[in-house]
Amino acid sequence: MDKKLVYLDNNATTKVDDKVLEVMLPFLKEAYSNPSSMYEFSKVSKNAIENAREQMQAFFNAKNKNEIYFTASGSESANTAIKGVLVTDKKKNHIITTKVEHACVLNLYNQLEKQGYKVDYIGVNANGELNLDELKEKVNSNTALVSCMYANNETGVIFPVEKVAEIVKEKNENTKVFVDAVQAAGKIPIDVQSMPIDFLSVSGHKFHAPKGIGCLYAKAGTMFSPLVIGGHQERGKRAGTENVPYIVGIGKAAELAKAGLEYEATEVKRLRDKLETGILKTVFNSRLNSSVTNRVPNTTNIGFEYIEGELILLYLDDLGICASSGSACTSGSLEPSHVLRAMGVPFTSLHGSVRFSLSRFTTESEIDYVLSVLPSAIEKLINISPYQDELNALKNYK
Amino acid sequence: MDKKLVYLDNNATTKVDDKVLEVMLPFLKEAYSNPSSMYEFSKVSKNAIENAREQMQAFFNAKNKNEIYFTASGSESANTAIKGVLVTDKKKNHIITTKVEHACVLNLYNQLEKQGYKVDYIGVNANGELNLDELKEKVNSNTALVSCMYANNETGVIFPVEKVAEIVKEKNENTKVFVDAVQAAGKIPIDVQSMPIDFLSVSGHKFHAPKGIGCLYAKAGTMFSPLVIGGHQERGKRAGTENVPYIVGIGKAAELAKAGLEYEATEVKRLRDKLETGILKTVFNSRLNSSVTNRVPNTTNIGFEYIEGELILLYLDDLGICASSGSACTSGSLEPSHVLRAMGVPFTSLHGSVRFSLSRFTTESEIDYVLSVLPSAIEKLINISPYQDELNALKNYK
Repeated sequence: MDKKLVYLDNNATTKVDDKVLEVMLPFLKEAYSNPSSMYEFSKVSKNAIENAREQMQAFFNAKNKNEIYFTASGSESANTAIKGVLVTDKKKNHIITTKVEHACVLNLYNQLEKQGYKVDYIGVNANGELNLDELKEKVNSNTALVSCMYANNETGVIFPVEKVAEIVKEKNENTKVFVDAVQAAGKIPIDVQSMPIDFLSVSGHKFHAPKGIGCLYAKAGTMFSPLVIGGHQERGKRAGTENVPYIVGIGKAAELAKAGLEYEATEVKRLRDKLETGILKTVFNSRLNSSVTNRVPNTTNIGFEYIEGELILLYLDDLGICASSGSACTSGSLEPSHVLRAMGVPFTSLHGSVRFSLSRFTTESEIDYVLSVLPSAIEKLINISPYQDELNALKNYK
Repeated sequence: MDKKLVYLDNNATTKVDDKVLEVMLPFLKEAYSNPSSMYEFSKVSKNAIENAREQMQAFFNAKNKNEIYFTASGSESANTAIKGVLVTDKKKNHIITTKVEHACVLNLYNQLEKQGYKVDYIGVNANGELNLDELKEKVNSNTALVSCMYANNETGVIFPVEKVAEIVKEKNENTKVFVDAVQAAGKIPIDVQSMPIDFLSVSGHKFHAPKGIGCLYAKAGTMFSPLVIGGHQERGKRAGTENVPYIVGIGKAAELAKAGLEYEATEVKRLRDKLETGILKTVFNSRLNSSVTNRVPNTTNIGFEYIEGELILLYLDDLGICASSGSACTSGSLEPSHVLRAMGVPFTSLHGSVRFSLSRFTTESEIDYVLSVLPSAIEKLINISPYQDELNALKNYK
């Protein structure tokens, strides 16, 4: 790790904030008691969990801290909400989600289809914006669940989850609404009381807590079955001895993220815009793969026409720059992104799309460095592209 | 935590070994990459996971490191194996387990009974030893799964899992065998190749890794469905970004535990025996609640006749001694232990039973301290017991 490292893949994972690690450490050292035990020594763990629960409550603006459940990941949170709510009303077998959900959530829906559920996938337009008319049309009396992400992991496009939930509840007040907020948390404010949703999930490692801790908001009174059955932890909704250090960590990370939202909206956004504008200005075959305005402040997804994304990433890696072509969970797959395909991104740039995602630890000099080296890297790839005629036409057109 | 602390509740949870924390820390600091990413920076995480997988392989003496799956807890491991294997053959609906499994595992079986599974619960004798004849009788062609713990959490009694598995496979080679080894790991050697089992689960925080990491061994070729569906992590068997720091931690903890087995069998056992014999000698209403010989080296469960266990624990807590009346997961429940009831422990000592569980960090002076203060604490409780006649009779009899 002596090599230069410019980490612009914060939608894949983030660095644990030193302040988060600092509050975790006592629970990895002397304060190791099992929070379920009865003696005095267990109280420090028990209280730490409840304090973190309050921090998460504040982060979501939840009404009650008992609406907060700690899990081991965003995936576990999503599995808990989705599978947990479906078994409470087995007569309903219709689910609605979007074509651009995270690949992991889509995998779960594919499995549910095999089990007999009917799943409708709502489309998006070229800017990545959700087709709300299609949603409205699809909700019916048999719809058990509507599941919609808050912000897309690849493009950063923000979905109008408040409106989505209102549309759903207006057509069927018994349909449950699950919001995957993994890519929204820490980037834009979350206020669960401002919208009629039932579940919302986040993952700690996307906002500077460690990997291996997630959180699920479930509105008071919402029925769901636990995914991990066993002990009484998390009020019987998630068995297993509590991961006290990480629970303390995600609580602190949420507190810091909430306090840092203004910085995200201004400084992180300024750097993201500088990077984006710089690339779009200097690289003639580049184009923005999403809505300009309606995005989380840290993400940009840029298509480089007629060249290969994997090659770009390799060049960038050599230069010490970490970026990605989509979600880390689908890394290594040669399939073009399902998100960009759903948006109708032309095949000429589909394969050459790169996501850059910043964090509060991204510095101006890092952005300057990328802007100083990226154009010539792309130039080299343009020179070896088999699409010389098309590239020349594009250059002259611009 | 300036107060004296003599921690004798290591079956509830253990202190993270400093050597474990030390190898984890880089992954909570600079080495924060997502192991699924494609760039160079991700390799350090990816390699660390595979190194830990090899450490777990060695710990279990598994044939192949791909038989190792990381989870977030012992409970998740058990849920994954049990629910995951049942869905692979939905025609079979018979399960066999024991009356003395961990309360969390029993909860899961209660749930499965509600879903239509027939569950037989094998009993134990007064020493806590399993009725193998009953087991043999119950296995039939409809038996999908036999689930048996390796060592009991309350008494420390070791079950002959090798023999259990042989009996099961002889009667039905297609019946899967799941071993909950949570309380055996780090206390006695585990060798999955020495017995015809299909699954084995452990929990890191029982052998000096942090809370929030578990591991499941699944024999190569054994089919099971993932509990958490989503990304491709753990070869598609457990979705969610890998908890790299804790995976590194459990790997190191397993390495240390394996190296420390000799110390457990000699020094930890010596201290446990000193504590046990000391109490049994000096406290006239005490009796041992388990087999003398066939136990893990760190555990003793002692009944104090005609007095209340919760009161003993309160007194001990005041003296800075952490012990428990059973599993932490059922702490606070006023029900007497299902394990001791299954063993036919008389009601006179059922309510006054205390589990002491040591670790490699337990010192001789701690044991001496307990032996110096416990008899007078018990004496006080004897004096306020409503059973004076019975206690006098007992005293004169002894």
